[in-house]
Amino acid sequence: MHTLLGDYLLQHLQQTNEGTLPARVFNCLRDAILDGVLVPNTRLPASRDLANELHVSRNTVLNAYEQLRAEGYIQAHTGRGTWVSESLPDCYIEVGPTPISTATTKIDQNCKLSNRGENLLLHAAASPHQWGAFVPGVPDVTEFPHAEFNRIKSRLSRQPDIANLIYSNAGGCLELRQALADYLRIARSVNCETDQIIITEGIHQAVDLVSRALCDLSDHVWIENPGYWGAKNILRINGLSIIPVPVDAEGINPEEQPLIVPRLIFVTPSHQYPLGSHLSLSRRKKLLDFAKKHGSWIIEDDYDSEFRFSCQPFPSLQGLEDNPPVIYIGTFSKTIYPALRIGYMVVPKQLVQPLRTIAAELYRGGHLLTQRALAEFIVEGHYAAHIRRMRLLYNKRHKYLIELIHHYLGDEFLHEYNHDAGLHLVLKLPTYVNDVEISRLALSRGVNVRPLSQYYSGVNAPIQQGLLLGFACVQEQDMIFPFSILKQCLIENGVLTTFHKANV
Amino acid sequence: MHTLLGDYLLQHLQQTNEGTLPARVFNCLRDAILDGVLVPNTRLPASRDLANELHVSRNTVLNAYEQLRAEGYIQAHTGRGTWVSESLPDCYIEVGPTPISTATTKIDQNCKLSNRGENLLLHAAASPHQWGAFVPGVPDVTEFPHAEFNRIKSRLSRQPDIANLIYSNAGGCLELRQALADYLRIARSVNCETDQIIITEGIHQAVDLVSRALCDLSDHVWIENPGYWGAKNILRINGLSIIPVPVDAEGINPEEQPLIVPRLIFVTPSHQYPLGSHLSLSRRKKLLDFAKKHGSWIIEDDYDSEFRFSCQPFPSLQGLEDNPPVIYIGTFSKTIYPALRIGYMVVPKQLVQPLRTIAAELYRGGHLLTQRALAEFIVEGHYAAHIRRMRLLYNKRHKYLIELIHHYLGDEFLHEYNHDAGLHLVLKLPTYVNDVEISRLALSRGVNVRPLSQYYSGVNAPIQQGLLLGFACVQEQDMIFPFSILKQCLIENGVLTTFHKANV
Repeated sequence: MHTLLGDYLLQHLQQTNEGTLPARVFNCLRDAILDGVLVPNTRLPASRDLANELHVSRNTVLNAYEQLRAEGYIQAHTGRGTWVSESLPDCYIEVGPTPISTATTKIDQNCKLSNRGENLLLHAAASPHQWGAFVPGVPDVTEFPHAEFNRIKSRLSRQPDIANLIYSNAGGCLELRQALADYLRIARSVNCETDQIIITEGIHQAVDLVSRALCDLSDHVWIENPGYWGAKNILRINGLSIIPVPVDAEGINPEEQPLIVPRLIFVTPSHQYPLGSHLSLSRRKKLLDFAKKHGSWIIEDDYDSEFRFSCQPFPSLQGLEDNPPVIYIGTFSKTIYPALRIGYMVVPKQLVQPLRTIAAELYRGGHLLTQRALAEFIVEGHYAAHIRRMRLLYNKRHKYLIELIHHYLGDEFLHEYNHDAGLHLVLKLPTYVNDVEISRLALSRGVNVRPLSQYYSGVNAPIQQGLLLGFACVQEQDMIFPFSILKQCLIENGVLTTFHKANV
Repeated sequence: MHTLLGDYLLQHLQQTNEGTLPARVFNCLRDAILDGVLVPNTRLPASRDLANELHVSRNTVLNAYEQLRAEGYIQAHTGRGTWVSESLPDCYIEVGPTPISTATTKIDQNCKLSNRGENLLLHAAASPHQWGAFVPGVPDVTEFPHAEFNRIKSRLSRQPDIANLIYSNAGGCLELRQALADYLRIARSVNCETDQIIITEGIHQAVDLVSRALCDLSDHVWIENPGYWGAKNILRINGLSIIPVPVDAEGINPEEQPLIVPRLIFVTPSHQYPLGSHLSLSRRKKLLDFAKKHGSWIIEDDYDSEFRFSCQPFPSLQGLEDNPPVIYIGTFSKTIYPALRIGYMVVPKQLVQPLRTIAAELYRGGHLLTQRALAEFIVEGHYAAHIRRMRLLYNKRHKYLIELIHHYLGDEFLHEYNHDAGLHLVLKLPTYVNDVEISRLALSRGVNVRPLSQYYSGVNAPIQQGLLLGFACVQEQDMIFPFSILKQCLIENGVLTTFHKANV
């Protein structure tokens, strides 16, 4: 048996790992009732059936049912099964929509954060929901060949080299740096030698290192508008002054004669985040010339360039010249899994020694066994094979989601910069709606979409309303139900009439 | 066969993993010749014997010998073996003593670091040498039950939970936080619930989080003098103003009526780093009262409190009161191995939510599979058993090193705060010597000791000369040879006469 309720509960159960399993099953069922997913007088599935569908023990479901009954949410009639109560208990715990970010968390007056800490909290945007339809930017972590990687890790960990157990201040495991240099030269046309690579914990640590090692307080940094909130928050807490620069179909588009020269320029040339455009060759050259002329550093964030479906990935900006003022950064979060926390930087030769030293002082090196195993995983060809496989898979999911939008909403909802790439696409909304409201409503019904407006900075910029829909971690058949919920949310927000297009 | 030369080479080979093995063997032999460890006309061991001793192939040694011969360092006489040349080549590559820190690395003028970056480089102190006699603060990583830990990791990684593969913003793996709460309550008398624990990458990340989330630029921070360089560097790059506070036999000893109230107080109450005193109860109470009165936060760094040999570990400062203004931080770097990069903070309840959120924004959570495995390792009792075993082992090594000092140098060289604890001890030197010079000389001969004077801050403080000697990662029999080198360095620096005490 494969029911909608089962799908709904499975998705919700995966979104949190807080509390015991029976408590989570209880919470999900209660939320389904309070949110109207299960309306009064609906008959609940038999405990044995639901247990099968959720892959939990029957006792877990029985306990949840018993608790729901005790609290008045459901009623059991011997011989006739279990039903959602006609009238819900008066004094249930108020379950409002989960806030889209923790920015609204109330801070105890006594806790006295710093001004920079408070300011960061105001802009906090990391979501507690990192799985299911339609979380953007999360790869399908279940498709990774864990057994293969585990075999390598396990072999190397049995009698590990001492060098892999102690601190490293050489910029990370040598073998991984070698494997990456080879990979990046070929796959991304990056101009680099092994020594130029510094292994990081991911994009955030790379931006943190660069913004502290190369920038002082109030130094200016250009960021794409809209752009990645995570990088902005790091730059912000490190005291940099953020100048949002508009993007168009050719990528970042700064003024010809800017009044303020930035110390740092943060760009996503291969696949602009979040809109999806590609930085044109003429703009790339202009940007490099500008940086060289004014002594600015460019951070090239190449976060998901591996996933381009219709053609070869575009080569990197860094590779256009010899030793350009570019710090190229990448991550395995999108290609392997986020919690692996391994990323890399390719730094200009003159920065290698100082950045290695500063990285060792700030973070101390480590995780060398995992890095060593990853090197072997790459050298043995598993990494390239995994990427090829995922590219096909994501291509299919991408096409399917486009098809859903085309068929049930209309092509006017597809953002024009959506190209055949990446792990998410942008659903464009009319300017008169509030995308934050819509994503809040969708989230309260178990569907995660991120409002596009929250990726914008600055008060004067024209803000496009929209929703980021991640398709990478959702199988095609699992898109349909959440998509119908999303459509319902759009209808309730006046974006569509109920007669608009076909029903899902 | 077990030769002194073999010991020397083995130690040097372990200190670097840069370059191929033959290149490293060549470099070590060349250094031995240039440093006078192998004097002219010394006969080198047969290649087969040396290969056996170094656990490398005979070809590796033959290649190194051939290269040395080609460059004029050694001469081969058929039938009479291989000898160090009488006169060394004139134009060999100048191999000066390895700098004790990378602070002196010359920076290319074009690389234009930030002022804070340059300032950090000036204070950089992380050593590239992290193994062998007498590196302080490094545990014996070869004694950890890797097979046991690996078995757990491997089982959990085969078909990992999705929740352990994606970002976490709950402060780390729930099971590890639970296991730690139980452990810290019992072993360290810490007052805490699971929710108060935030998993970190280690002490550095904890200090980084606190100094940015709770302190603004130019806020003042008290640090012990002498104190941990790593914490100071993090505080420094985050713009805090450091006030060094002297320590005595009862630990940190601030003025009764300080002119400037600090926002943050960084202390090591259980085992003052690096001198070894223990913060007395009356000082603890005074410090807590002071912090509560003035709204300061105390960071309690409990970095190696597990290793107290003669009595029970002292309970934590944090546990003295209910919800004190204390952020308790600890690490597995000293108890398991440094490259594991797992540490923890116990934060006051009112700080849990904001610090979790800020940590997620700055670092994004991850490494959850390793954290999950560590939880199981602790819960199954392996962690406590490992600590008990290492305590006995370190106790023996500690006693042995004390005995060497007592016998060959004299008890006046033992610092009075050396108690029966930790992973290092302090060798006290007369004020007229230069401990930096001595450690440089010792390092050029393959012995790692850190100069005590470099742990001091501020111009007006009286600076004690001395050397930190780590004993944890050296077996007793492997202490003798490096200790004799160290003694020779002391003699050459006028600390001892050649007739002083017995020969090693």
